[in-house]
Amino acid sequence: MPSYTAPRRDIQFVLREFLDADTHYSKLQLDNELSPDLLDAILDGGAKFAEDVVAPLYQSGDAEGCTFRDGKVTTPTGYAEAFRQWGEGGWQGLTVPVADGGQGLPASVSMCVGEMVGSANWAWNMYTGLSLAPVTCLLNGGTEALKARFLPKILSGEWAGTMCLTEAHCGSDVGLLRTRASDNGDGTWTVTGSKIFISGGEQDITENIVHAILARTEGAPEGTAGISLFIVPKFWVEEDGSLGEFNNVNCGAIERKMGLKSSATCVMNYDGARGFMLGEENRGLQLMFKLMNSARIGTAMQGLAMSERAFQGALAYARERLQMRSLTGAKNPDGPADPIIVHPDVRRMLMTQKAFTEGGRAFIYWLAQQVDLTSHGSEEEAATASELLELLTPIAKGFCTESAQEVAYLGMQVFGGHGYIAEHGMEQVARDNRIATVYEGTTGIQSLDLVGRKVLGSGGKLLRNFTRVIHKYCEAHSGNSAMAEFLAPLAEVNREWGELTMKVGEAAMADAEVVGSASVDYLMFSGYVTYAWVWARIAETSLAALQRGEGDEGFYRAKLATARFYFQRLLPRARAHAAAALAPASSVMALGEDEFAF
Amino acid sequence: MPSYTAPRRDIQFVLREFLDADTHYSKLQLDNELSPDLLDAILDGGAKFAEDVVAPLYQSGDAEGCTFRDGKVTTPTGYAEAFRQWGEGGWQGLTVPVADGGQGLPASVSMCVGEMVGSANWAWNMYTGLSLAPVTCLLNGGTEALKARFLPKILSGEWAGTMCLTEAHCGSDVGLLRTRASDNGDGTWTVTGSKIFISGGEQDITENIVHAILARTEGAPEGTAGISLFIVPKFWVEEDGSLGEFNNVNCGAIERKMGLKSSATCVMNYDGARGFMLGEENRGLQLMFKLMNSARIGTAMQGLAMSERAFQGALAYARERLQMRSLTGAKNPDGPADPIIVHPDVRRMLMTQKAFTEGGRAFIYWLAQQVDLTSHGSEEEAATASELLELLTPIAKGFCTESAQEVAYLGMQVFGGHGYIAEHGMEQVARDNRIATVYEGTTGIQSLDLVGRKVLGSGGKLLRNFTRVIHKYCEAHSGNSAMAEFLAPLAEVNREWGELTMKVGEAAMADAEVVGSASVDYLMFSGYVTYAWVWARIAETSLAALQRGEGDEGFYRAKLATARFYFQRLLPRARAHAAAALAPASSVMALGEDEFAF
Repeated sequence: MPSYTAPRRDIQFVLREFLDADTHYSKLQLDNELSPDLLDAILDGGAKFAEDVVAPLYQSGDAEGCTFRDGKVTTPTGYAEAFRQWGEGGWQGLTVPVADGGQGLPASVSMCVGEMVGSANWAWNMYTGLSLAPVTCLLNGGTEALKARFLPKILSGEWAGTMCLTEAHCGSDVGLLRTRASDNGDGTWTVTGSKIFISGGEQDITENIVHAILARTEGAPEGTAGISLFIVPKFWVEEDGSLGEFNNVNCGAIERKMGLKSSATCVMNYDGARGFMLGEENRGLQLMFKLMNSARIGTAMQGLAMSERAFQGALAYARERLQMRSLTGAKNPDGPADPIIVHPDVRRMLMTQKAFTEGGRAFIYWLAQQVDLTSHGSEEEAATASELLELLTPIAKGFCTESAQEVAYLGMQVFGGHGYIAEHGMEQVARDNRIATVYEGTTGIQSLDLVGRKVLGSGGKLLRNFTRVIHKYCEAHSGNSAMAEFLAPLAEVNREWGELTMKVGEAAMADAEVVGSASVDYLMFSGYVTYAWVWARIAETSLAALQRGEGDEGFYRAKLATARFYFQRLLPRARAHAAAALAPASSVMALGEDEFAF
Repeated sequence: MPSYTAPRRDIQFVLREFLDADTHYSKLQLDNELSPDLLDAILDGGAKFAEDVVAPLYQSGDAEGCTFRDGKVTTPTGYAEAFRQWGEGGWQGLTVPVADGGQGLPASVSMCVGEMVGSANWAWNMYTGLSLAPVTCLLNGGTEALKARFLPKILSGEWAGTMCLTEAHCGSDVGLLRTRASDNGDGTWTVTGSKIFISGGEQDITENIVHAILARTEGAPEGTAGISLFIVPKFWVEEDGSLGEFNNVNCGAIERKMGLKSSATCVMNYDGARGFMLGEENRGLQLMFKLMNSARIGTAMQGLAMSERAFQGALAYARERLQMRSLTGAKNPDGPADPIIVHPDVRRMLMTQKAFTEGGRAFIYWLAQQVDLTSHGSEEEAATASELLELLTPIAKGFCTESAQEVAYLGMQVFGGHGYIAEHGMEQVARDNRIATVYEGTTGIQSLDLVGRKVLGSGGKLLRNFTRVIHKYCEAHSGNSAMAEFLAPLAEVNREWGELTMKVGEAAMADAEVVGSASVDYLMFSGYVTYAWVWARIAETSLAALQRGEGDEGFYRAKLATARFYFQRLLPRARAHAAAALAPASSVMALGEDEFAF
């Protein structure tokens, strides 16, 4: 049976050595001090929860899946109990302000915990993640009375939550949504309509479920300008927070999916269900977008979490599976064959996994610190971090989930035929992970956001902010000869990023189809450059540690070797993406709609 | 419900226009003439069988899967009846010599049929494909008496067959196998041992199953030099071909797999089962390798078949799904939104699918003609074709199945969230297809075969054979100015192929790990160059047709546009693979086995 061990050493490396987290946290304006000891205790508790409570449900949850009968969803054995422990341990409210009943910790802390719990069992983790949807919406758009009415029981884990955007005819194009809300005149609204793909829309884990729903009020403008946000509980919630009667929130079916089988994906019918509006009328999408941005980084985190899981599985198998001899002589002469980790191509697969996984961790954790700064930093820090996040969120969501597809693919490939069967859990990683490039906005949607809205939409400003960071980094370390092998190619691709942007921008002025034609390859190019910067910084951190000579040399040398692998073998892909992005839009637009097949 | 329509027009284009199949077949030495009309009748019959008999079982077969109880396997509803029709229609013996009870047709014909039936339902198709394993082994190594005893009922579809190599501890490293065979002294052998991953090892489709098994005789040398080939029936077969008693061939379990759920993958226990040796003692692997070569092209065909299926699904959905407006103005002004095929990034995905699918079809069908020549051509033709096949079989197996992963991925991506649920059949394509880069030799194994055995092992001769074909092609068409956009980059990457080979070869002489370090990227590079040659030839064929002006202009213009797409957007990836292949072996070998994670 596959197991999961939290990558404690690498998380410590990224937080303490790479990101100097203790200094970072000491400078934030927090409700309570986050001391190094407290951080360690949280990380340790999260690791144990992931390993001991959630990981054991990984394969059984997939095998049992969710079942649907007579409007009721049954989740796998143990899911409810694990959720109870999650709530009881105070994990659900980790980042909620103390005044609102939470722990008041910065987002980056809960993201570390989220990586571990997510690696252990992403499907289970979704019930906790989606419960943050109504919490976030309430914090951003709820009155004190509404917060008091709903938050305590969600934060205690007694209730869960959902996020309801998609309808059968509208996914990416949310402006087409039809769910209606009518004003009851008493501060409540009645919501009627049908939503699909609602994770945790119905379940037997909690006694109540609070739905955050996008809907149109009567007479609202068409399109995205006429969408409001509501919270609608499955069972009515009285002012004192006690449960009332059933609120006409019905689950019509659950989907049969490729993976995440233990996360119930529901068709939800709101048949005149009562709820409350959050924020202003017709401004619901703006509120939901605040949630979407963190959901996108959360999905990038899924890419990391699944990558870690695939890497751990493949590495363990490569060390133990005996097959053929090393071409440089037997490495396990007393056995019938050598462990397959001796073979260069198996190592190529493992190194690729390692480079994407550890690079992704360093990148996402750094990004999480930027999220911290937007809430708990100085005004200037918050502004700088916000601009970086605007640019880098679609890159993180797109690139971390796309690269995770490759990492999960390689996880199966290292196992050979044994990867295709359920026993080792590798095919489950690939199935569970497959949705990550789709939900919270497909890679295509992230790419349009990146190129159209962020890069060209800011006249290049948001990109220059970041390429300047990279440029200054290269300059600042130009005197370090040990870094030359990384800085020279980094400076070069960073320069090319600017050139590529200029060319795409110019072409886009002449032809409106250029943005869409170039976008995904542009995003992938951007991701490879960003990871080059990350790996150069990891190399720098590791070189410094080796120079200090305080031990753990193998760890730091492995980081250096992985940085080299990244620059030598993965970064060259950036140029293939640049070439594709620079192809004329006619490369994709030449055919008539009826000329793709005959 | 997803449907499948055989791509009749493209198959006709590839066979008639691209490959001049009628001339090809008229020159072969065949048992019976294969006239253009007969070819059309076979293609039409194959298309109808695929569409009407096999395709309807695609989703139901996956949903039902195979079940195992008390040693018996139950296959999905309709599988046995479809197999009966397959046998009755004479499809099983299409390529078997007339003297041995078959139709005596060349391999390329059955591969066209195989594409269609495989697209319709690859899992069902496996029962027919594996039945050819004992047939091929008997034809290559069986006495006339054994052929007469076994072939008729396999060819009639009354019996099926398997191919048994893998054991729990030996997959790629077949030399480790332990299954034993002892000589009974009466012309029969008793086989004892256990095999895993045996497709169709047990089923309820046919009354008997004939297993082709690799095993060791007593006192055989260790490793691959001591392996012999046997056929062992589930029920004993008397000399007159009638069924005898149960032959101690037991199914111990079936695997729970990611996909191909309706193809029973069995643990098989041979508990003193009687059988016959084929060919010479200790020479079984050589016989099996003849089968493996065609199985590898057959698996490349899986890549094509699944790609076609993913492309058809995505294209239909892209035409029908309404979501957002074209950036150049509404294309469906009367509807609530435009069909997503108007969006450049959706087109990028469809064009990528089209380029790999149609390029793969042209390549594999051309390769199938080379297979025809090895059996039915002149001595010189057979020799030339054999050498091309030695080089190109691992490229086809590796590249067509790897690119098919991307095509299947894009099939889901075009569908967005709807691709992740079972309803549209797209996630099933991805699951069914995932094994193709693994079985019949992983991409890593194909790459070692390509670089180590074929390219460097022949001192570059096998590669020069093919790069010369490409070089001469470029020269022959250098006067055609309309071809310049394809020929210039083709000549360039062809030249780079030689250079890459020289560099890898030189490095390999100094360091034995270079072959394995470079191999998969070398194979992928080779695949991109090969497809460039294929797409240049498709462009040439299409330009000529447009010049003749005999109609169907849209079809040929679409081919030209797809060739351009391939050269502008996919071929640039070749250089990223070259860069990775040229990275020093230290890029993957630097870490100690215990330094991949801490």
